Amino acid sequence: MGEYLIAPGLDPRKDQVLYRDDEHLVVYLGTQEGGADVDVNSYLIVSSGKGILIDPGGYKIFSKVLANISKYLDPRDIEYIYMCHQDPDVAGSIPLWREVSNAKIIIHWLWKRFLPHFGFEDVESVSYTLPDERETLHFGATTLEFIPAHFLHSPGHFTIYDRRSKFLFTGDIGIAILDEPLLVVEDIESHIQAMRTVHERLMPTNNAIKLWLDKVKYLDIEAILPQHGAIIPKQYVRRFFDFLENLKCGIDIMR
Amino acid sequence: MGEYLIAPGLDPRKDQVLYRDDEHLVVYLGTQEGGADVDVNSYLIVSSGKGILIDPGGYKIFSKVLANISKYLDPRDIEYIYMCHQDPDVAGSIPLWREVSNAKIIIHWLWKRFLPHFGFEDVESVSYTLPDERETLHFGATTLEFIPAHFLHSPGHFTIYDRRSKFLFTGDIGIAILDEPLLVVEDIESHIQAMRTVHERLMPTNNAIKLWLDKVKYLDIEAILPQHGAIIPKQYVRRFFDFLENLKCGIDIMR
Repeated sequence: MGEYLIAPGLDPRKDQVLYRDDEHLVVYLGTQEGGADVDVNSYLIVSSGKGILIDPGGYKIFSKVLANISKYLDPRDIEYIYMCHQDPDVAGSIPLWREVSNAKIIIHWLWKRFLPHFGFEDVESVSYTLPDERETLHFGATTLEFIPAHFLHSPGHFTIYDRRSKFLFTGDIGIAILDEPLLVVEDIESHIQAMRTVHERLMPTNNAIKLWLDKVKYLDIEAILPQHGAIIPKQYVRRFFDFLENLKCGIDIMR
Repeated sequence: MGEYLIAPGLDPRKDQVLYRDDEHLVVYLGTQEGGADVDVNSYLIVSSGKGILIDPGGYKIFSKVLANISKYLDPRDIEYIYMCHQDPDVAGSIPLWREVSNAKIIIHWLWKRFLPHFGFEDVESVSYTLPDERETLHFGATTLEFIPAHFLHSPGHFTIYDRRSKFLFTGDIGIAILDEPLLVVEDIESHIQAMRTVHERLMPTNNAIKLWLDKVKYLDIEAILPQHGAIIPKQYVRRFFDFLENLKCGIDIMR
């Protein structure tokens, strides 16, 4: 079996291996820097020598992410890039990644005709299009399940379950806007207060959350890996789902 | 009173004055080009010699938009830029606009800490932040009302009512993804079918639509100006609102 390295106190400014076994590696790419702008959490999965980059981040952190990836993989072996939505904090570096790899961009079908605005003319050959429904992708030594999380917050949003590491990459779900970088949640109750503020305003309605919870709550999950804020380790996953289940948000509380 | 120039057959590839009086001008900036990628509709309001640019578009059309604006206004006199969300089709040219003007970026408070990802370090001095509630901005010879349209589709989305022209700029509401450029709706029933497809998938739930309709349905509206697709002239506004009122969308029809 593999080794889990998620522990309190991991330095969010450095790349960190979160899971490893003989054929499979999950890495946090050291993308939290602090400061005035919102940081992204970028992740890399390396499986049987091929990479998938999840939420590559803005253009300003590109060189750091590239350098950190190079410790684990030749960047030319990045096979896929997934972005949970098109905002510049998450996807601003996409044109630069096109320069250093031949990665396909995994994207919901709705956004495909918007890709040329990043500077691609070759949308058909560059994109791997997800339908509305759950999609299964065999990737190296694992299977990735793209689980619909539509409207949370992007209309064509997916969370990704890596069957080998049992990590659930949740994009915007579980994010927190924190004053100081933090990689692993230590105090779940205070962290829920930080998550509450942004979820109340970012998520349209609890009904959308419930649709997603019904798809993930019976999974065997080792950790929740969101694209902002901190990783939620296994012991807090149930508490996190309880928080979401009862959250009133968006139009539920808006007039 | 002013003069309205919205008419069937206007060329969407060219800039078009849509309203004018002695002190006030509303211009469509000729941003529909056809082709594989989704076009944006960019608009300019010039009032008492000052400009507001609404949804400037992607980086590829920047030089065209700049040239078209220059026919009506010195680009340095653009006082504000509003973007209805941060996607690259709507906002990819923002860093370039910063180079040619000192315009303030009007943006919902939630996105302010994300602005540095466009390349701004001076977020405080550059942004005009909208609260969740309706905001009124006195601008030249008019008053602009920023009317909340949250979650349609961005969480912090506003429509803009220009009291002088009586135009309602609706961002994502009323968009259509068309095969051929079209500036003014001629056949409302076939256009509703084109709008239906994208609204069903982009908008999270009819409840969010109803919250917005309650805020705009009693306004005196001369035209609906969306950021994709075609302008809906006065005679079809009621039909358009009926379509929205009865639309099931997003999680209403999703399992």
